[in-house]
Amino acid sequence: MRVLVLGADGYLGWPTALHLSHRGHEVGAVDNFVRRQYDYELGTSSLVPIAQLQRRVKVWEDISGLRVQPFIGDLNDAEFVYDTVREFKPDAIIHFAEQRSAPYSMIDRAHAVYTQVNNVVGNLNLLFAIAEIDPSIHLVKLGTMGEYGTPNIDIEEGFIEITHRGRTDVLPFPKQPGSYYHLSKVHDSHNIMFACRIWGLRSTDLNQGIVYGQETDETVLHPDLATRFDYDGVFGTVLNRFCVQAVAGHPLTVYGAGGQTRGMLNIRDTLACVEIAVNNPAEEGEYRVFNQFTESFSVKELADKVVEASNGPVRVTNLDNPRVEKEEHYYRAAHTKLLDLGLVPNLLDRSTVASILSVVERHRDRIDVDAIAPSANWRSAGNDDRLHSEAGSVRS
Amino acid sequence: MRVLVLGADGYLGWPTALHLSHRGHEVGAVDNFVRRQYDYELGTSSLVPIAQLQRRVKVWEDISGLRVQPFIGDLNDAEFVYDTVREFKPDAIIHFAEQRSAPYSMIDRAHAVYTQVNNVVGNLNLLFAIAEIDPSIHLVKLGTMGEYGTPNIDIEEGFIEITHRGRTDVLPFPKQPGSYYHLSKVHDSHNIMFACRIWGLRSTDLNQGIVYGQETDETVLHPDLATRFDYDGVFGTVLNRFCVQAVAGHPLTVYGAGGQTRGMLNIRDTLACVEIAVNNPAEEGEYRVFNQFTESFSVKELADKVVEASNGPVRVTNLDNPRVEKEEHYYRAAHTKLLDLGLVPNLLDRSTVASILSVVERHRDRIDVDAIAPSANWRSAGNDDRLHSEAGSVRS
Repeated sequence: MRVLVLGADGYLGWPTALHLSHRGHEVGAVDNFVRRQYDYELGTSSLVPIAQLQRRVKVWEDISGLRVQPFIGDLNDAEFVYDTVREFKPDAIIHFAEQRSAPYSMIDRAHAVYTQVNNVVGNLNLLFAIAEIDPSIHLVKLGTMGEYGTPNIDIEEGFIEITHRGRTDVLPFPKQPGSYYHLSKVHDSHNIMFACRIWGLRSTDLNQGIVYGQETDETVLHPDLATRFDYDGVFGTVLNRFCVQAVAGHPLTVYGAGGQTRGMLNIRDTLACVEIAVNNPAEEGEYRVFNQFTESFSVKELADKVVEASNGPVRVTNLDNPRVEKEEHYYRAAHTKLLDLGLVPNLLDRSTVASILSVVERHRDRIDVDAIAPSANWRSAGNDDRLHSEAGSVRS
Repeated sequence: MRVLVLGADGYLGWPTALHLSHRGHEVGAVDNFVRRQYDYELGTSSLVPIAQLQRRVKVWEDISGLRVQPFIGDLNDAEFVYDTVREFKPDAIIHFAEQRSAPYSMIDRAHAVYTQVNNVVGNLNLLFAIAEIDPSIHLVKLGTMGEYGTPNIDIEEGFIEITHRGRTDVLPFPKQPGSYYHLSKVHDSHNIMFACRIWGLRSTDLNQGIVYGQETDETVLHPDLATRFDYDGVFGTVLNRFCVQAVAGHPLTVYGAGGQTRGMLNIRDTLACVEIAVNNPAEEGEYRVFNQFTESFSVKELADKVVEASNGPVRVTNLDNPRVEKEEHYYRAAHTKLLDLGLVPNLLDRSTVASILSVVERHRDRIDVDAIAPSANWRSAGNDDRLHSEAGSVRS
């Protein structure tokens, strides 16, 4: 199949592009490199060095004989989107190309607005391009488990049957997202559902959990094929961040009580899930949601796993929670649809944590401990002068 | 109270500003006149001539001795929003200032993107301004009953108690909006709910039905106090449009089977509902939703009412439905919260229809029958060349 990967220079987009190329698909790689721009803005860097996209593509071709075709541009540029879809003629489009950090979206007004406009408009341009050029293209969209929040009932996969005053309907699962970023994904989901309904588009919305890990079968083949590994307070996700703190001899910083429970998955399973979605397209007019995670853990449990897998003593400390979220809550979410289609999960055992720790060990000289502290506070609308001066100047 | 009315030059914003001024509030009137710009874009006009805002304000002061303070600017300009809130120091802000036409949002990609960016960013700027300047300001936001769509269960006011697999929670009512415009209101609702949760803002989301009528106690005092009356295929709402067709001797154009049922209300009740919301503010941190309509009618029933109230024969014709919507469906929506707070509805009886017809009669020389036909088709993503050339050029 011809698969266009949007955000193909990013943490998950790049290994996905390689994986699908390896598995025999014709892959186009779209990016505007804004993720690298965020690093310049924040003064942060991937722990693992990453090559430029053109270099990555060349090394992959040298090693595999397979060609990934780059398209450089911005989804907010409708002409670029239309031109790319017309030229590449994809069977499926995998859409990773959104600002994906909750803390980044919470820095201040400008970052909240940027996140929602960037994500919502990019996605709208894509929906219109598909509808106008080829409505049979299968849109595989990355959403997030964070769209659901933490309701006091079981979370289903996108829809829930509700019986109310003697009548029954299957309706979109109610959403209670926890940041302006998560809200942008909720907005996208509603827009996509509508586009499928009125134009007969086919789409799979992958409500993904928190991803951990850095190595995949393809990225380990050459240092210039490596994907990024973020551990900073803005873009770093929790398990990766804990591993860096453990290696740096820094206490693991648990936000608040640490009872916050989330669905998680290994980066290898992200690739497998996306491949499953591509190989099993949604029907014409179908908007379907897969909850894409394999296990749930509390933040406390994750810290314990890192302590356990570390050589030597690691301390855990509790920070005032910068986020507004429940720190002890019910959490049970369905995630059977991808398993039914054949997903065989890589679970989070001690050896997995150890392998992440060993990636960190290899690059320990690049750790900037100062970058790990949380730098956006959910309770402030952005009056924090430090943030305004450090991070508020690039986007507006 | 000090009340800032956003969109105060519009169909409902202007009569609301007058009404609140009349009732003893200090009123600020914010607008950027983009509604008048849409008329230039589409070649349409209000059936009833409308004076410029400065003239309206002067006439109101001459007649009532009361001063409405104008603020000219765009909510998408954050600096303007912050400056206006700082200067006027409102106790409540009533937010009408959004692109409010579903067909306009469905013209093509550019109009869909414009509608969502304009509405979502304006509302985000407002939320941040309130949070940073004075979180005690009560935000009264105009949403729409169209956010809910037409589920096969009773619609509640914003939230629904769901029991699922033996557990119960009260969750946001699932949304199934029917246009990119309606989607923008769903996005707003989610953003506001979140802002109330994290910042302790207080907000009332008025999910309004379709408004009919043109005269209020204040607007009838002088021709230059009149509010607009739209009957065109893009901005005209159904009952107003039928009245114009009846007077023009044109068949009433029912879209599809005409079983589409919607909540509706008299323009005088809009003013009463907004006043009730302002006088009974939400609590700190509370996001509450009132369903703001008084009766439900199908499109067919509305056509019958206009036929009945007309002098002389009026024909009804069924057009291919330009929208994608259920034409026969269950519809029952709660709307008790505003009644509990004292709303006494003006119901849609024959004399009400007759009074709208008499407004139209008075201005029948201004009717442009060609403007009534629907000009956006939900099934097309915007390839229609006529629309591209006629309406697609102003916004991009």
